[in-house]
Amino acid sequence: MIRFECDYNEGAHERILQRLIETNMEQTSGYGTDPHCDRARSLIRQACDSEQADVHFLVGGTQTNTTVIASILRPYQGVIAATSGHIAVHETGAIEATGHKVLTVPSEDGKITADQVRAVYEAHRSESSPEHCVQPGMVYISQPTENGTMYSKAELQSLFETSKKCGLPLFVDGARLGYALASPDCDMTLADLARLCDVFYIGGTKIGALMGEAVVILNDALKPDFRYMIKQKGGLLAKGRLLGIQFETLFEDGLYLEISRHAIDMAMRIHDSLEEQHIGFLYESPTNQQFPILPDVLLEKLRSQYTFTFWEKVDATHSAVRFCTSWATEQENVDALARDIARLMHEPSETRELAEALV
Amino acid sequence: MIRFECDYNEGAHERILQRLIETNMEQTSGYGTDPHCDRARSLIRQACDSEQADVHFLVGGTQTNTTVIASILRPYQGVIAATSGHIAVHETGAIEATGHKVLTVPSEDGKITADQVRAVYEAHRSESSPEHCVQPGMVYISQPTENGTMYSKAELQSLFETSKKCGLPLFVDGARLGYALASPDCDMTLADLARLCDVFYIGGTKIGALMGEAVVILNDALKPDFRYMIKQKGGLLAKGRLLGIQFETLFEDGLYLEISRHAIDMAMRIHDSLEEQHIGFLYESPTNQQFPILPDVLLEKLRSQYTFTFWEKVDATHSAVRFCTSWATEQENVDALARDIARLMHEPSETRELAEALV
Amino acid sequence: MIRFECDYNEGAHERILQRLIETNMEQTSGYGTDPHCDRARSLIRQACDSEQADVHFLVGGTQTNTTVIASILRPYQGVIAATSGHIAVHETGAIEATGHKVLTVPSEDGKITADQVRAVYEAHRSESSPEHCVQPGMVYISQPTENGTMYSKAELQSLFETSKKCGLPLFVDGARLGYALASPDCDMTLADLARLCDVFYIGGTKIGALMGEAVVILNDALKPDFRYMIKQKGGLLAKGRLLGIQFETLFEDGLYLEISRHAIDMAMRIHDSLEEQHIGFLYESPTNQQFPILPDVLLEKLRSQYTFTFWEKVDATHSAVRFCTSWATEQENVDALARDIARLMHEPSETRELAEALV
Amino acid sequence: MIRFECDYNEGAHERILQRLIETNMEQTSGYGTDPHCDRARSLIRQACDSEQADVHFLVGGTQTNTTVIASILRPYQGVIAATSGHIAVHETGAIEATGHKVLTVPSEDGKITADQVRAVYEAHRSESSPEHCVQPGMVYISQPTENGTMYSKAELQSLFETSKKCGLPLFVDGARLGYALASPDCDMTLADLARLCDVFYIGGTKIGALMGEAVVILNDALKPDFRYMIKQKGGLLAKGRLLGIQFETLFEDGLYLEISRHAIDMAMRIHDSLEEQHIGFLYESPTNQQFPILPDVLLEKLRSQYTFTFWEKVDATHSAVRFCTSWATEQENVDALARDIARLMHEPSETRELAEALV
Repeated sequence: MIRFECDYNEGAHERILQRLIETNMEQTSGYGTDPHCDRARSLIRQACDSEQADVHFLVGGTQTNTTVIASILRPYQGVIAATSGHIAVHETGAIEATGHKVLTVPSEDGKITADQVRAVYEAHRSESSPEHCVQPGMVYISQPTENGTMYSKAELQSLFETSKKCGLPLFVDGARLGYALASPDCDMTLADLARLCDVFYIGGTKIGALMGEAVVILNDALKPDFRYMIKQKGGLLAKGRLLGIQFETLFEDGLYLEISRHAIDMAMRIHDSLEEQHIGFLYESPTNQQFPILPDVLLEKLRSQYTFTFWEKVDATHSAVRFCTSWATEQENVDALARDIARLMHEPSETRELAEALV
Repeated sequence: MIRFECDYNEGAHERILQRLIETNMEQTSGYGTDPHCDRARSLIRQACDSEQADVHFLVGGTQTNTTVIASILRPYQGVIAATSGHIAVHETGAIEATGHKVLTVPSEDGKITADQVRAVYEAHRSESSPEHCVQPGMVYISQPTENGTMYSKAELQSLFETSKKCGLPLFVDGARLGYALASPDCDMTLADLARLCDVFYIGGTKIGALMGEAVVILNDALKPDFRYMIKQKGGLLAKGRLLGIQFETLFEDGLYLEISRHAIDMAMRIHDSLEEQHIGFLYESPTNQQFPILPDVLLEKLRSQYTFTFWEKVDATHSAVRFCTSWATEQENVDALARDIARLMHEPSETRELAEALV
Repeated sequence: MIRFECDYNEGAHERILQRLIETNMEQTSGYGTDPHCDRARSLIRQACDSEQADVHFLVGGTQTNTTVIASILRPYQGVIAATSGHIAVHETGAIEATGHKVLTVPSEDGKITADQVRAVYEAHRSESSPEHCVQPGMVYISQPTENGTMYSKAELQSLFETSKKCGLPLFVDGARLGYALASPDCDMTLADLARLCDVFYIGGTKIGALMGEAVVILNDALKPDFRYMIKQKGGLLAKGRLLGIQFETLFEDGLYLEISRHAIDMAMRIHDSLEEQHIGFLYESPTNQQFPILPDVLLEKLRSQYTFTFWEKVDATHSAVRFCTSWATEQENVDALARDIARLMHEPSETRELAEALV
Repeated sequence: MIRFECDYNEGAHERILQRLIETNMEQTSGYGTDPHCDRARSLIRQACDSEQADVHFLVGGTQTNTTVIASILRPYQGVIAATSGHIAVHETGAIEATGHKVLTVPSEDGKITADQVRAVYEAHRSESSPEHCVQPGMVYISQPTENGTMYSKAELQSLFETSKKCGLPLFVDGARLGYALASPDCDMTLADLARLCDVFYIGGTKIGALMGEAVVILNDALKPDFRYMIKQKGGLLAKGRLLGIQFETLFEDGLYLEISRHAIDMAMRIHDSLEEQHIGFLYESPTNQQFPILPDVLLEKLRSQYTFTFWEKVDATHSAVRFCTSWATEQENVDALARDIARLMHEPSETRELAEALV
């Protein structure tokens, strides 16, 4: 079985494993107070061009989203997010479990706009009895989004300025951040991002690490006591150095972006080969997730050798599915996939069945 | 600096690292649904002699305690625990953050008794308006306790029977479970434990693993939908196989108990050498944590070369401190510690100062 | 100023005040354990033809919704409701504050259907990893709805049967229940309702009482320990008898339905007089809330003498607004309102302005 | 049955009922935005000599405690309180249900000291890893306490100054506030209290009102958005005017203190008559709660005609019980109680039995 259903099918980049072995018997203090975490924090601050940033390491994405959001909101506040935002649909109500509503706004492609943020803010302010409704307290976006799309620098700037005017901290979920930054279509750097939001995180789990997310807090008001929040929400790893060592490795010599670029190359290879077959896509994604629309009969056959994620029915005979690449994707697997899809699209014995599906 | 302040100062047992390397580029599904987790679950069920047990892997202890407790209690219920219980003092209110009170009962040595559980239960039942008070909903104990002490099989059986009569599920925090089971003073096996509680966990973080705790649910009523709880509380590791691989390694060929035994040997070596010096202990601990009472002036000197944990002032010139050993503790470090303490106890130049402290 | 903006502008029905005076210096026990509460419970059980029902008295609607919902759901479950449901929009996130997501389904008129419930249930069940999403745990509807519409007996039966098949308790918010039951269009009785849901409440605050909502629990599984929930959520009134006395008065001699009917008569008087003016309505409401669509210029003038609630912009020059009647509405006020609207619709001096608005 | 088990056995003071009748058909806006609430707020500000105070009306005590505390604390903070504090024992974990731990300190008489507050604060600050423990975030006291005792002005001043130095807002639960202020032993006024804490409330439920507590917020930092908290926690009464009307009545012409004084007179009458019989007391209470220690055989007999609250066993044959007086207590009932206790203490036929009990 060749796996494309997500971007965490393998272990860690070999340089990370190597460093874990080298440092294994070092004795360090726990909970992220060790020299490896210190150095990783320093490297990340440097990469963000933000010497004043606070950097914290957590284990996973849902945990990170919950911890950051719960640390920012007052009890009666909610977080603005796209209806497709990870926190709105795929975290088993983790945000609500900390007492907060996710205030969703519609989105075609996973992105939200400054105008939408302003509209939610204005609508609340203009209520005759605003205290009967949840008060918008912050904004959550993902870069890249759950649909593979990206915010441009201008879009992000606009979102940040509007959010600031409305008094709403802007939080960027970067579980796949490298896969945005490494995309040829991306017009922003890590330093740009760090200037254009209040807090974000750099995903390690999906990009080379065994696990780990690095939270970068830019806004001074959000810094105090964040470690209490991490501990309470179960995210303060006893052997915190494991996260430090991994991010240290990812952020020296540019490894993080380098391996992200590989994932993009592989994704584009899938994209281009499918486009050649005149296959359409649900979203135009320049990142590591590709959402082709394929005949259901073809998908049925493909399933015997490949894993991928069903996304949605598009019409009676077609569905959009998701293929993810990652730092670990092997080119031969990508090429096999492209070949098999091409073959299945043209296999003579299937002509009639496919013809019907392609109507 | 030689570290004894906790039992997670190093990385992982080398066989675990070896297995991570061997399996690194295997492609597996996420979130604990992979073959390594399956095999680890099977090995643990076997070791527990509980074929019907549900086994889940979480990342850390606070997370595990929170998730298990929140999954059991109704909103108006609390959990009975010793005042010294980890959930009562060292989890930043993680239990309260899920809405539940920790109902503490006093304890000299970290253990609680069946009689105490019954007393809390009866006191609540005999209230004239019980609904004005938190209803006891379950019992939490640690084996070994935070003070290094252990429940005997008879004590556990009594606690379990009483809890059952009171309708209170019994949950055993086994963050250091191996260090109890491997103690020569321990009269119970893993299978005994599995018969004598409703749910417990096997700590990996402190015993050989990079991180990871294996929750074993024995009581059928507590099994449904537990994965929802893990996900919501941020504990469902994307690359769940990392936990599976580690517990697979720990539970084939008896590695878990073998390396636990080493920690006990090292702890006893500390214990015996200090006892030889007529040094007393705050708790009589047969496990990997030792709590000697030492002169403050001696401790001051010791700090330049060793880390350990201050526990409490005992009198004007003495304090109890904690030394932890682990699977990774090197004998030469233990011997150096013993030697240095002996030397400091007798150093001529210090005679007067120490004499005062020893009054 | 004549008030139509809500249905709680006045105090209580005079018979209630009379009873409060008569019983004022009686000494009773607190928290709803007094003889008045007992008698009120008995009268309500009788009116519901449900001798086995548990009846509890709470103070307000948001409190009641929160308490009932939090008592039913497991931590990872959410409550299905219309997007316009009171719990989804007008309770400041009270449901989320207890840890639960409101799973909204779209609704034109405030009602949801059995098919929608089944669809949410099936969608969740068919997820490949359902534990990453909130599990539907119950269904919330309002009778009448926030838009003045009502469920027919057949619709309710269908909802109840489907909910039961899906294992989802059905909870009916009856903050305005009398205003449904007293409507000539209503084809169900209180006893019907009690057969067709798991738990509901009878609103007193909006129908004759100073305050108070009577929760009626039909499903045995939802009965245990409900008083703990009331107390924890701050709803256990010390002088509980105040609620007992009020419901006692409302449920002897049919006062509750009698005064509800008056509100409907007044609402219909508004409805019919506006319809005569060829004024349209946003929702076809047979209950005490009426939602006419009126020219903004007319509304502007009306505001100097009447209060009412802005509902939504309908087009560039018109808005839908809400007029509420209640048990206390005086006919002369209704007639004045009708007269003034008719006058404003036809006032010669306004012709041009209104003509534009009416385009 | 003559009732002394609590201070809310009757309805409301007759002047309050009178005002409810007079204002019953007035039309007002809801949720505390009406002229009666405005006037009540103004009268309370005046009585507190605090023109800048924010005043809010809630329905009950548990609700008020929960709402105030949840509005002040950050998620990882707890509230310092006496072990006997109402929030610690008699609110079914309402505070924990909002995510916060109650950090209890021991107390003989229900009061806590500035030194205790400082000790908790210092202990937390001096932790080597403070983020593993709940951070003290505020201080809760009751005036008078649950044991009938009172803070002196000097004690309160000391608590306030210490709390301020530690950055901990001081919250005073005044459910029985009048019964402190009206005590001859009390050396503070309402205005003193308002100078010596950050937020407090004036209990109406136990002093003359049907229900209602008036929260007075002095500290500007605690004022914003408090109405959101009230609404979310279910405390925003739809017919808010009911609370306004009651506090208006209580705070014009000094009614609140006047009727409080009556309760104290009645309590002292009980106290003095029992003291004459050489009966001891568990606490020396100068307020409306009296805690005599009586022979169990006497209490058994007393129960056939009087209600009171069992407090605790004092020895094998005696118990402390609580008698409450209130604004509504009738002197003839007090005198009957005193007479009956005196008679039972001396009844010849009981001599032997009592003699044994009195050993």
